[in-house]
Formats: sequence, C-alpha cells, structure tokens
Amino acid sequence: MGRCPARLCSMSKPSEKPAVTAAVIIIGNEVLSGRTQDANLQFLATGLNEIGVRLMEARIIADVEAEIVAAVNELRAKHDYVFTTGGIGPTHDDITSASVAKAFGRAFGRNAEAEALLRSHYKPQDVTESRLAMANTPDGVTLLENPVSKAPGFQIENVFVLPGVPMIMQAMFGGLKHILVGGDPILSKTITAFIPESVVAKPLGELQEKHPSVEIGSYPFFRGGKLGTSLVSRSTDAAALETVAEGIRALIRGLGGEPAED
Amino acid sequence: MGRCPARLCSMSKPSEKPAVTAAVIIIGNEVLSGRTQDANLQFLATGLNEIGVRLMEARIIADVEAEIVAAVNELRAKHDYVFTTGGIGPTHDDITSASVAKAFGRAFGRNAEAEALLRSHYKPQDVTESRLAMANTPDGVTLLENPVSKAPGFQIENVFVLPGVPMIMQAMFGGLKHILVGGDPILSKTITAFIPESVVAKPLGELQEKHPSVEIGSYPFFRGGKLGTSLVSRSTDAAALETVAEGIRALIRGLGGEPAED
Repeated sequence: MGRCPARLCSMSKPSEKPAVTAAVIIIGNEVLSGRTQDANLQFLATGLNEIGVRLMEARIIADVEAEIVAAVNELRAKHDYVFTTGGIGPTHDDITSASVAKAFGRAFGRNAEAEALLRSHYKPQDVTESRLAMANTPDGVTLLENPVSKAPGFQIENVFVLPGVPMIMQAMFGGLKHILVGGDPILSKTITAFIPESVVAKPLGELQEKHPSVEIGSYPFFRGGKLGTSLVSRSTDAAALETVAEGIRALIRGLGGEPAED
Repeated sequence: MGRCPARLCSMSKPSEKPAVTAAVIIIGNEVLSGRTQDANLQFLATGLNEIGVRLMEARIIADVEAEIVAAVNELRAKHDYVFTTGGIGPTHDDITSASVAKAFGRAFGRNAEAEALLRSHYKPQDVTESRLAMANTPDGVTLLENPVSKAPGFQIENVFVLPGVPMIMQAMFGGLKHILVGGDPILSKTITAFIPESVVAKPLGELQEKHPSVEIGSYPFFRGGKLGTSLVSRSTDAAALETVAEGIRALIRGLGGEPAED
C-alpha cells in the first residue's frame, strides 16, 4: 500500500492514512483506431477519487495477449488496485480473461458459479457455447455482479476485470465500490481567472513551494475568445487546501484579476 | 520499423510496406483526477491511422518526472513514433520538456530559435522569464510550429512533444503530419446489425480464422432499447477486406438479420 511518487505522497501528513493508488487498463483496438471515444476512464477516475483511491496511470492497449499480460503484471505490482475494462464478451477478440489467467499463471476454464448465473438468465435453448464462453475465468476468482446482463466480471487478487460497455461497467463498479479501501478522501478546489498562465506562473510556483502538502495544477483555457487559467488545488488536508485557495485568490487579485469559483 | 505484434503484422502481405507503429503519452494529473475528459487521444488515433501509422498503445501518466522518463524510454524503443501531449506550458507543473531531456540524457536549456519566436510574438514588456520558460528544450531538437500561440513543440529523434490544449495540439499535429512516414493505409469497414454478440460469435470466429490478413473486431451496443453488434474489419488489403465484408453480410443474413453500413 502507498507506493506513490514523492510528489503525491507529500499530499499526506504523517498522521494520515497512507495513499492508496490504482491503475486502469483499457483493452480494445476500437479506442486505438480512433473509432470510439473512451467513456470509461473519466468515470473510473472520478469514482476512485471519491473514495480516496488515487488513479496514478491508465493504459490503453490492443487486444494482444502479450500486451495484456505485461500491463497487468507491471501495474498490479506497482499499485494497490488495477481495473481492466473491455474484452470479456463472447467473440474471438475477447481475450482479456484468458490473458489475465496467464498473467497470474493460473488455469483458465469454466467457472461453475458464472455458468449457473448465465443458465438462470437465458432460456435453455439460448444457452449456447458462445454465451457460456463468458463463464470462463481464471481459477479462484471472486465474481463481480453484472446487474444489467448477468455475464459477470471478476476480482483476482488486486485486479478487477470489468466489461467495456460503459452502462454495464458503471453498474458493476457501483456494486464493488464498497469492497475497495481508500485512503483519506482527496479534496479539491478549482479557482479560475481570465489571466494567462504565463502571468500567474511565477507567484504560483512560489505558492506551490510554500505548500508542498497541496498539489496545485494550472490549466489554460480559451473561453469567449479570452485566455484564462484554471487553478486546481488538491489535498487530503482541508485546512491546507483553504490556505492555498486563499493564496490563489490573493494572487489573482494582485494581478488585477477576479477569482471565480464553481 | 515494424515491431508490431503478430496479430497486426498478419494484416500486411509480404509485398507490402512494413507496419509503422506509434504510442501516445498523455501527461497530466487533470485527466487522472477525472476533472478533464481527454480530448487528444481520439484525434491523434484518427490522424495517425489516416496516414498508415498504427497507434498501438496510449498511456496517461501524472506530472511526475520518473514516470515521464520511464514511459518515454520504454515506448520510443518499442515504436516508430511516440507523441506526448501536455506539460509544456510556463507553470511549475509543466515538467514534460525537462523530463524528456532527462530521458534522452541530454542537457536542458534555452533554445535560441524558440526564444526568438516568443520575442517576436510578445511586446518587449511582456517577454517575462515565465514566458521564456516555454523556450527551454532539450539540446538538439527540431522545433514544431505553433500557429496559434507561437510557443513551439519539438521533435527529438522519434519523439514528438506536443501541447495539451486540444486546439493548439491539433494545429501543431496538422503541421507535422507531412514529416511522418506511414505504412500502407489501414482500410476499415463497419457493418452493424441488431443481433447480439453472442449469436454472431461462433460464425464470426470461423470467418476470422479463415482471413488472418483482416482484423475483425466485434463491439456490442444498445440502441433504441435493442441489443446489436458493430463488426469492424481492418486491413491494408482492400480485396481481402471486401471478401470479409461480404462474409459478414452473409453471416448476418444467415442469422435472420439485416446488415447496415454507414
């Protein structure tokens, strides 16, 4: 637990719970070909942050066994939790479950509990071999309930294997959120102003130096033809966050701007 | 060139140009916190595919030097081209350029050509140290023109360092597309039907077996309350692609469905 890089670790005070980190692996050629805009990363990022789990990286990889095995093994060693999305359907390009079995060096085959779920969902004449392929998992997994179409995802150690269809992935994630153990919630505050980034840069850097327990991000935007900057502060320490927010408001006013907040 | 996994290499006939591959690295805590929906990946994926460059993977990583160095070095060894987006602005959290210098073991400092560009863009009193920070690059890079706000991106060997603001990134990518050398263009054909994936799975798998030079992807959807499947075929071989498309149309009709195409 808590193998976060120095910059984020500094967001926690010694008295607080250690940071809990996660990675997401999005598996699917359709995102890499540009055909599909991924819709899962932002949902998972937001949901994880809400429960105090810091999403540290995401990878989008092709339906290629060696790529899936390598990404799963690298990221499960590096983070507390790994979530995969995609590639657990019934067609020939759905190779995630078998690849995850390989990553863990476990046998891959029919999961009796998953088979029972599918058999209870379909009429007997609709229980085909293709549908039952969705009941194949690595040995020794915990199934994750799919309230939409029954075919389950699964948990294997610290890796959660979820479907790629956003509606089903979101329902499944909702059901497993209570299993995940987060650190202190990460609080954030966004303050915007119509001042270019290059004008706030120097005093903002000084403010960041003074408050290492708060991570300050700066994001430029164009709105209504005007250049502006969003300043996003994040921390587990509410008091430090408010001190930094006050510093940012003062900084903006000092530059002749007007701080705006959502 | 052409270090593609077996599955994609099989998409090329021996007489064709070798596959050219790429990776994208999106650098920025704002995507990982869920605050921002990434808008750059799909644009780059589409643009690269158009010129025959296969996007094989994408990583979204935090503004952390060690993470940037590791991702750049791993991916530039593995792919023909690497594109980074984000982290080249003037604020304290913009650490991409310095991290890329470190990845290449090169000195990092003021680029005279970039400085001249910025000085010609701003009024003398607006040429601040913060703005000039955007003229710092690794040694020996080729600048990439920024037609929107002048602060350039750069090319260092096979790595292209682009900004994160979509409008500027897109303009810069448009200007460098002619530099990139792709393989044969990747043609694709999408056929949809209101048939569940699990029903097409078996004959589709058999079709894929018969035509290894075409990559067939299957993607479920819900539309108007009905379950359907998009079948996407991709290949550099137009004749093989049409043969597979004909096979898919026949397969759908054989199952009582009606194939639809864009």
